[in-house]
Parts: sequence; C-alpha cells; structure tokens
Amino acid sequence: MTIQQIVLAARPKGTPAADNFRTENIELKSITEGEILLKGLYYSVDPYMRGRMNDAKSYAAPFQMDQPISGGVVAEVIESKSSKYNAGDRVLGMLPWQEMIIAKEAAIQKIDASIAPPSYYLGVLGMPGLTAYFGLMHICKPTAGETVVVSGAAGAVGVVVGQIAKINGCRVVGIAGSEEKTTLLKEQFGFDEAINYKTTDNIKKAIATACPDGVDIYFDNVGGEISDAVIANINFHARIALCGQISLYNSAEIPVGPRLQPMLLTRSVLMQGFIISNYQQQFPEGIQYLAKYVKEGKIKFRETIVNGFNQLPHALLGLFKGENIGKMIVKA
Amino acid sequence: MTIQQIVLAARPKGTPAADNFRTENIELKSITEGEILLKGLYYSVDPYMRGRMNDAKSYAAPFQMDQPISGGVVAEVIESKSSKYNAGDRVLGMLPWQEMIIAKEAAIQKIDASIAPPSYYLGVLGMPGLTAYFGLMHICKPTAGETVVVSGAAGAVGVVVGQIAKINGCRVVGIAGSEEKTTLLKEQFGFDEAINYKTTDNIKKAIATACPDGVDIYFDNVGGEISDAVIANINFHARIALCGQISLYNSAEIPVGPRLQPMLLTRSVLMQGFIISNYQQQFPEGIQYLAKYVKEGKIKFRETIVNGFNQLPHALLGLFKGENIGKMIVKA
Repeated sequence: MTIQQIVLAARPKGTPAADNFRTENIELKSITEGEILLKGLYYSVDPYMRGRMNDAKSYAAPFQMDQPISGGVVAEVIESKSSKYNAGDRVLGMLPWQEMIIAKEAAIQKIDASIAPPSYYLGVLGMPGLTAYFGLMHICKPTAGETVVVSGAAGAVGVVVGQIAKINGCRVVGIAGSEEKTTLLKEQFGFDEAINYKTTDNIKKAIATACPDGVDIYFDNVGGEISDAVIANINFHARIALCGQISLYNSAEIPVGPRLQPMLLTRSVLMQGFIISNYQQQFPEGIQYLAKYVKEGKIKFRETIVNGFNQLPHALLGLFKGENIGKMIVKA
Repeated sequence: MTIQQIVLAARPKGTPAADNFRTENIELKSITEGEILLKGLYYSVDPYMRGRMNDAKSYAAPFQMDQPISGGVVAEVIESKSSKYNAGDRVLGMLPWQEMIIAKEAAIQKIDASIAPPSYYLGVLGMPGLTAYFGLMHICKPTAGETVVVSGAAGAVGVVVGQIAKINGCRVVGIAGSEEKTTLLKEQFGFDEAINYKTTDNIKKAIATACPDGVDIYFDNVGGEISDAVIANINFHARIALCGQISLYNSAEIPVGPRLQPMLLTRSVLMQGFIISNYQQQFPEGIQYLAKYVKEGKIKFRETIVNGFNQLPHALLGLFKGENIGKMIVKA
C-alpha cells in the first residue's frame, strides 16, 4: 500500500518555513503479530515541536533528518494482530506523520469517545490540558482571591489554565494577540479581563490596570517582552510557571532582556520550569479532574481544525503566527 | 551624654561613597522605665543595606535621610530600667549606628556567649547563617552526591552554604574573587573546588570542568555574568536559590542579560527568590542546626573585623569591593 508521510527536509535557522518539510510516498508492509494498522484521524501540532526541529539536546529528542515528524495522533484501528485492539477502536499515541501507521501495542492507548470527541484527547484531555492542570495546580497552587495572569491565553493550554483558575476562585487576566481572541476569552471562557498585546501601547500599564492588586500567579506560555511586563507587576510570594516561550523559539541568537533575579529575589518569587512528562505518574489525577469539569461544562474547549493531511506543515507554522484559537489540529 | 551617630547624608546613584554618610554628635537622654542603655560592641555591615539606601519600595524599608543607618548590632547592657536585662548582659538587635543606644525591651534579645563568641550572632549564628541554612535546606533540598555551586562563596553566607552542603554529602564548588579566597575555601572550609572568577578566562568552561556532572544546586549571592555561566551548566531538575545579587546592587540602569526562561523551562529548573524573614517562624530550627555543627567544629566561620565605630561606612563600602572574607564586622 502506498501512503504519504511528511519528513524533516532541513533544519530551520530562525523561523521555520514550508521548505523545512517534504512529503514522500512510501510503501507500507503488511502487519505482523502484535502490530496494529492505523489510519490517522487527527494530528496534533504544538509549539514544542519547534525545539525538536533543532539538532540540540533538549527535553524531547530532535527529529531526525529525512525521517517523519512525529507527535500526538488520534487514529482508528483498521486491522489488528494484537488481542488488545480491534478494528474500529479509536486510539491515541505519539506517532509519525503518516496517513497510515503501523504501531506496536505499547505505543498506543484506547480513548473513551463517550466522554468527549476523539480530538479532545489531543487537547483538553491530552497534553495541553494536563500541562495546564499540573502547571497551575502543582506549581502555582492558586488560592481563592488571587490574581492569575496567563499569556498565550487563547491557546490550547491558556484557555484551560484560565478556566481552572476560575474554578479555584481566582481573578483571571489573559493576554492574547487579537480582538477576536480577547473577546472570546471574556465571553466564552469566563476570563475577568483580557489584554490584546498587539494593540496596547504600554503592556506593563495595561497589566497594572487589569490587576489592581498585582499579579500573584503568572502562567507563562510566551516569554519575551510580555513576560517582562507581567513580572514588573509581580507580587511578593508570587509563583511563575514556565510552560512555553513561543515568542523566543525562532530566535537564532540568544535572546537578551532585563535581568529577572533582582526582582525575583526582593519579592520572594518562585519560578519553575516544567515539562509535562515530569508528572507522568500523576496523569490519572489530572485526567480525572479535567474530564469532570469538561463533562460539567465548567471547562469549555475550542479547536482550530485545519483539513487535509498535507496541511500539517502549514498548521504547525501557523502556531508561530498566532493563527489558532484553542488547540490547532489537522484532520486527515 | 554626647555620643556619635552615623546618618544617611545622601542617597547614592550607582556605587555608594563615603559622602553618602555623615557622622554627627547627639545628646543622649537618661533612660526611663522599660528602657535599656546599650554600648555597641559589634556592628554588622551587609550587602542588603545597599537596597535600603535607595528610596524604593523593597522588602526592607528605606533608610531615612538624615536619620541613623541601622542594622544588626551586638551590644552590652550598661544600665537597665527593665527587669529582663541586667548591666553586663550581651544582647542582639536591629539597632541604629550609634556608639550608645537607648533600646526598648522588645527590640533586643540576650545572646548565649557560651556557645560562640558574641560577634558570631551577627554571622554564622545570625542572619547570614540562617540565610545559608534556609536557602540551602528549605529551597534547594540537597541530596548526597549532588553538585552544589555557591557564588560569593567566601562571604558570610557562602562559607556556611558550602559547609552545610558538605555535611549533606554534596560535591561543593565555590566561586570567589581572589586566590586568597579560593585557597581558603578549599583548605579551611572543605570545598571540593574553588574558582577565582577574576583570573579565569572562561568562567563557563571553568564551571563545566569543576562540575563534570553538571550543576544540581546553585546558591546565588552575586547575580550577573557569573550566574549566567553557572546557569549554562545547570542540570535537569536543578534548584537555584536567589539569595543576593551583589554584582547588580550598584547598577543605576536596569541590568540586561541573556533571557533565562528558555533554559529554566527546558531543564525543569526551580528558581526561588527569598529573604530570611520568610522563615522567621522556623528560626529556632535553623539556630539549633547551626549551633550543633559550630560546636562540633563541622561548620567553621571566619570574620573580617574592622576596628573603630567611625569605620562603619568604609566597611560597608568594602563589601562591594570584595574586601571581606567571611562576615564583615565593625568592632567599636
């Protein structure tokens, strides 16, 4: 069977472009004992993938040149030589960008489509939702009445952070890059305030106005000057979860900015970098929490779905232009 | 009775100088009920005092113009109208820079001179020792076999940090600014390695060589480029205690440097700013720990003693030139 796959054609310097990717036709063999043949339904594109395009040691191994990109995929079982899976099952795995995929049993897990649509397992019930949950609840430990600021607030992680903070009785201020996004944050996702950083003259002042009691918790998805402005408003004993730094991922040089340590020192601030795999042992706790509030309608979720397997590179590049609201997903 | 006091004569811009201070003669009244007349024996000068010379909100209130500087003082009771204190008692308090001081009962506490020399209550058994203890044990939580780097290692806090880390089975690397200091760190204080940042071409490489397994814990007393170099060698799940930023205290501009967050994020690093008063409720635990190891000789301590009350400004300014080894103290 001939299928398409998308491989890394060149490592980007700075902002990635379409020619960093290449679509290839490959021949798929028949499956053997213990293997499962899958058809990709939904493919996740995520900011952390930018790091994997570099040839640098990081928390996730670099993508290999001329090998398929891989990431979160929701797939349907087409044929199974495993007793654990049957044709028609919906599964989730870290899988290659191929139209059809041969997987081992251990690489996939079944998903429960009765709780939420299958694509939600790439979003609110998947890595982005768990990232929001563990970063906010385990690092920032919000208490009622505190002020929480979220950057990249309209992204897959950000919208969940804001809603969990509201569930915990906090005042929530989101920072995002368009009027459409800030309106949605307030009207759909229950944020108390939302700041459009692209149209705000003075982001530091805008944060001070939106946070009259200062910032107790900062959930940082973007880094750079937006973070400088938030940290300028930070309270004594504040907590900062470093989740993403999307504004810096495409920097070819080492980015420079005001030194943070004097501020963190004099205000006794905690800053904690994290990656979601640190919490792997506790995933069931996070999934239970998220599923409960999704079912109750207290955590809403939104997806930006791009149609067509071949659109995967375009969708990934779109993340860095802020083209998504909520989770960016490619539907095959 | 006419005595001398030292007041803040002008707020410094950048590095403070002698003319920021002024010595004055004042008339001391007789003490009234509940008051104690003290003669200052040992006066503490500490890096945090630089912040109090600014007119800026910080964790310690600014010194007032034309009012005496204040800080940790060990004093002797000369005359007492309090039932709690008798002439001859040695006491500790946050007191004004005056030769003789009238204090209220609540402003002072007795010290136990049987444990250690009185001046130690300004050092290893006082704020610097407690700062070392809580920063290392409560924030960094060392485990045996980990590598601990301490900057400002030959200062009052640094020497104690290194020795507590050794007690906990860590490999300890100190960074200091002279051969005399680095030799002392290794020969007197049991550090495994010590780096003289002033004579090292490439501090980042020097740290990598001294820390072949990377840096698990960084106790930061200095900030700036030394910290950049340490953080470039930081391990996954490392902890950084922000205790001091002496290299930046005299900056008139906001200091700029490489942005830390991408590194802290990808390596899941914790960075925690702290001031010692956060741990006030737990001081007895810290003092017990320090007193035990001082008595056992496992924590050694060193003082740089400057003689003469009038030398207080000079001694304080000397901290920023690295003139001290261990605790800088003025003996009246």
